Amino acid sequence: MSAADLPHMSLDEFRKHGHDLIDWIADYLGTIESRPVDHQVQPGDVRAMIPDRAPAAAEPMSEILGDLDRVVMPGMTHWQHPGWFGYFPASSSPAAILGELASAGLAGQGMLWSTSPAITEVESAVLDWLVELMGLPPSWRVDTGPGGGVLQMSASDSTHTALVVARIQATNAGLDASKLVAYGSAQAHSSIEKGARTAGYNHIRLIDVDDTFAMSAPALRAAVEADIAAELHPIWVCSAIGTTGTTAVDPVAEVGALAQEFGLWHHIDAAYAGTAMILPEMRHFQAGVEFADSYTFNPHKWMLTNFDCSVFWVADRAKLIGALSILPPYLRNTASASGEVIDYRDWHVPLGRRFRALKLWFVLRSYGADNLRSYIRSHLDWAQELTAQLDKDPRFEIVAPTTFALVCFRHAAGEEATKALVAKLAEEPSVYVAPSVVNDTTFIRVSIGSTWTERRHVQALWDLIDSAC
Amino acid sequence: MSAADLPHMSLDEFRKHGHDLIDWIADYLGTIESRPVDHQVQPGDVRAMIPDRAPAAAEPMSEILGDLDRVVMPGMTHWQHPGWFGYFPASSSPAAILGELASAGLAGQGMLWSTSPAITEVESAVLDWLVELMGLPPSWRVDTGPGGGVLQMSASDSTHTALVVARIQATNAGLDASKLVAYGSAQAHSSIEKGARTAGYNHIRLIDVDDTFAMSAPALRAAVEADIAAELHPIWVCSAIGTTGTTAVDPVAEVGALAQEFGLWHHIDAAYAGTAMILPEMRHFQAGVEFADSYTFNPHKWMLTNFDCSVFWVADRAKLIGALSILPPYLRNTASASGEVIDYRDWHVPLGRRFRALKLWFVLRSYGADNLRSYIRSHLDWAQELTAQLDKDPRFEIVAPTTFALVCFRHAAGEEATKALVAKLAEEPSVYVAPSVVNDTTFIRVSIGSTWTERRHVQALWDLIDSAC
Repeated sequence: MSAADLPHMSLDEFRKHGHDLIDWIADYLGTIESRPVDHQVQPGDVRAMIPDRAPAAAEPMSEILGDLDRVVMPGMTHWQHPGWFGYFPASSSPAAILGELASAGLAGQGMLWSTSPAITEVESAVLDWLVELMGLPPSWRVDTGPGGGVLQMSASDSTHTALVVARIQATNAGLDASKLVAYGSAQAHSSIEKGARTAGYNHIRLIDVDDTFAMSAPALRAAVEADIAAELHPIWVCSAIGTTGTTAVDPVAEVGALAQEFGLWHHIDAAYAGTAMILPEMRHFQAGVEFADSYTFNPHKWMLTNFDCSVFWVADRAKLIGALSILPPYLRNTASASGEVIDYRDWHVPLGRRFRALKLWFVLRSYGADNLRSYIRSHLDWAQELTAQLDKDPRFEIVAPTTFALVCFRHAAGEEATKALVAKLAEEPSVYVAPSVVNDTTFIRVSIGSTWTERRHVQALWDLIDSAC
Repeated sequence: MSAADLPHMSLDEFRKHGHDLIDWIADYLGTIESRPVDHQVQPGDVRAMIPDRAPAAAEPMSEILGDLDRVVMPGMTHWQHPGWFGYFPASSSPAAILGELASAGLAGQGMLWSTSPAITEVESAVLDWLVELMGLPPSWRVDTGPGGGVLQMSASDSTHTALVVARIQATNAGLDASKLVAYGSAQAHSSIEKGARTAGYNHIRLIDVDDTFAMSAPALRAAVEADIAAELHPIWVCSAIGTTGTTAVDPVAEVGALAQEFGLWHHIDAAYAGTAMILPEMRHFQAGVEFADSYTFNPHKWMLTNFDCSVFWVADRAKLIGALSILPPYLRNTASASGEVIDYRDWHVPLGRRFRALKLWFVLRSYGADNLRSYIRSHLDWAQELTAQLDKDPRFEIVAPTTFALVCFRHAAGEEATKALVAKLAEEPSVYVAPSVVNDTTFIRVSIGSTWTERRHVQALWDLIDSAC
C-alpha cells in the first residue's frame, strides 16, 4: 500500500467537504428558528432509514453529509433553538464549535503531560482563569495549589470521582466500607444517588429540604448524628448550588462547617449555576466555598462551550491523585517521574483524553469576561421578568424562587390545569419546556439560557402561556 | 439585549473562520511529516505563553486561531504523524473530523431517546453494524438482543462499568462486598486495577502469564479455587485480546468456560485489537467470545475514529440497566415509560452525552468495510515484515509474538544496549517509539497503525534502527 493506495479521503476533498459542512452548520444555526424545537419521529423511524449492514464499498462523502438532512434532522431535538427552555441549556457557540474542530484536527492524546504538553498546560491555565472569574479560592489554582482543576465528561463523573476518593480515604483509614454514608438533599441531582451506588456506598441519605427546596442543615446534622449513633461512618456530603429541579441553593457555609466538624468530604454541585458565579453579585450563593473539598460545574451547560466540558476542582489534589494513581511500565517517563508536571490520567477514571480545553479557551477569549457577564445577566433579567409576569397573574403560582434563570410555576387551578398547560405547550413547535414534579405536584420548568435566545423569545413564550390558559 | 446585542460571533464570521480552520487542518495534515513527531517544550513553556488571567474584552478569532501555531503547536506530540509508532495509534481521519464537527454543530444531547432520538438510533445502528463486521454474537445487537452496545469515553470507563455491574449483582445476591475478587492477567491494562479499585473491590488478582504473556488458565483456576477456599467470592474476570504491553491474547475460551463454571462475569478487553476482528482470518483470537458477558474495543485507537469513541457491549443489557438506572422526575417522559426506546443514560455513569456515533457512522460509510479490511491488513503485513527483519538479524531479539501490528524487540546485547537504542531513537525527530518493560527487561514497542503511515515509513524506521546499532 503506497500513499496513493491509502484509503483516506484526499485533503483536497476534505477541504471541500469541510467548507460545505461549515456552511451547513451556519445555515442550520441561521435557520434553526424556523424548525420545530422538538424532534418529529416515532421510535424506530431513524433506524428504519439506516441499512441493516455496514456498506462494503465506500460511499461518497456528499451522500453521507446529505444524510444529515435526510436521516438525522427529523430525529434531532434542537437544543440550540432559541425556543429551547427545556431541562437546562446545553449551550454551544460558534467559538466552541471551532475549538472542538481544532481539537479533532489535532487529535492528540493528553493522558500524560509528555504525550502532548499543550493539552495539559492549556487546560490547567484555563481552569485557573475560571478560579478567578468565579471567585473561587485561589488555592484551587494548579499554579499555586495545593488544589487544582481538571476537565471531565460530565458532572456525574466529577461527583462520582469525589465519592470514590472519599471512600478510598476512609477505607485506607481503616473504616468498614459497608458502613460509609453519603448525604445530599432530597432535591439533589440523580447523579448523587447514581454515583454513590456506583462507588459502592451502602447508605445514601437524601435529606429533607425547606420551603425553598434547599437542604435543611438541622436535618443534615440530625441524620449525621443518628448515623454515628448507629455506628455508621458519615464521610461525604454534597451541597447543591442550583438544584436541577428548581435551582435551590443549599446552605453551603453551614454544610461546610458541619462537614468540618464531622470530618466529611464536602462536594459542591454547581453544574448549572456555577456559570453565574462569574457575576460578583451572585457569589453570596457560594459563601463558604473555601471550606469545600471539591466543586463541579459545567461550562457545557451555560457557558457556551459544547458538551462535553465539566470542570472538577479539588482543594487538595494530592488526595485525588493518591486515590487514583496507578503507574504501569508503558506509561513511565522522565517528565512524570520528575514531579514537575501534571498527568491528568491520575485525576479521573478514564486514561485517554482529548484536547477538550481548547474550546473553553476559545470561548473565554472570543467572548471576553465582560461579554460573558452581560450575557448571563440578561438571562437572569429575562427570568425575573417572566417570573414577575407569572407572579402578578392570579392564574399562575410560582413554585420556587427564581434564583438564576430557571422559572418554576404551575397553574393555580391545580394539577389538571397544569398538565393541560403542559400538553398545550408541547403542541407548540416554537418552544420546548419540560414539566417536573415536586412534592407530588406537577410544575413547569422554564430554563432560559440557550445561546440564540433573545428577550423576544421569552416574551413569545409568555404569550403562548397566556393564551393557552 | 436584542439579536444585534447578543455577543456571539456572526454566522458570516463563523463561515470565514471555519473555512480557515478547515484549511489549517488540511495544511497541518498535509505537512505533518515535516514536523518532529515529539513536542518541543519543557514543563511550563506552554503555560508561560498564556496570560495569568482571562481577557476582559473579546479577542479577535483570527488571533485566537493564530495561537494554534504560536502557543499550541510547539507543545503538541503529533499522534497523527506517519512516524508515530508510540503507545497505540489514536487514529483520526478526515471523515471522523467531519463527523466530530457535525456533532459539535448540532450540539444535541442524547441522554434520553426523547432528547434527540437520532443520537440514540444512529448509535444503536452503527454498533449493530460492528457486531456483524467483527464476528461478534448476533444476540449482542440491540435490534435483536438481549445484548447491546453503547459508546463510552474510553475502555477504562467500559471496564469500570463492567466491574460495577458485577459488584452490584453480587451484593444484590447477598454476597459480602468486602470479599469480592476480580481477576486479570499480570499483563492486563492498568484500567483493570484502577477500575477495580474505583469500583471498591478489595481483592484484585493479577494472574501469571505464559511465555507469550497470555494469562495462564491453570493459574487462573488455581487462584479462583484458592479464593473460594479462603471464603472469598470470585465474581469478575477480564480476558485481554491484545494486551497493552505486547498484544498478548489470553485464552478467551478457557477463561470463558471457567467463568461459567464459577459464575464469574467475563469481560473482554480488546481495546486495541478489536479492530482486527473485522478480518475473518483474525477471529480465531476471539474464539469463545459468545460466552463473554461484556466486551470493549476502541474505534478511537485503530479504526480511524477520533477519540473519544469506545464501544462497550453487554450480552444482556437488562443486567446493565438494572444496575445503573435511576429515574428522577425531571427525566420522566412517555417514550421512556413505554419501554420501546433505549435511554443510554442508564448504560453508563455519566448522564449527558453528545452525538458521538456520528463520526463512527461517517467513518464506516466513507471507507466501507472492504477498504477498512485492506487498510488493517497492510498494517499487519508491515508489522510482519519488520518482525522478519529484526528476527533474522542477530543484533536483535523479538520479545513477544507479533500478533497484530505491534512489534516488540530488544537489543540482543542486553539492557544497556537496548536503552542506548531507545535513547538514539528518541533523538530522531521523524519517529516516535516508546520503550516498555516486561520481566524487568526493557524492550522497544513499535506500534504500526497511524492513519498516514505508509510502508516506506516503517522501512525508514528499520533503517534508523539498523544504523543506530
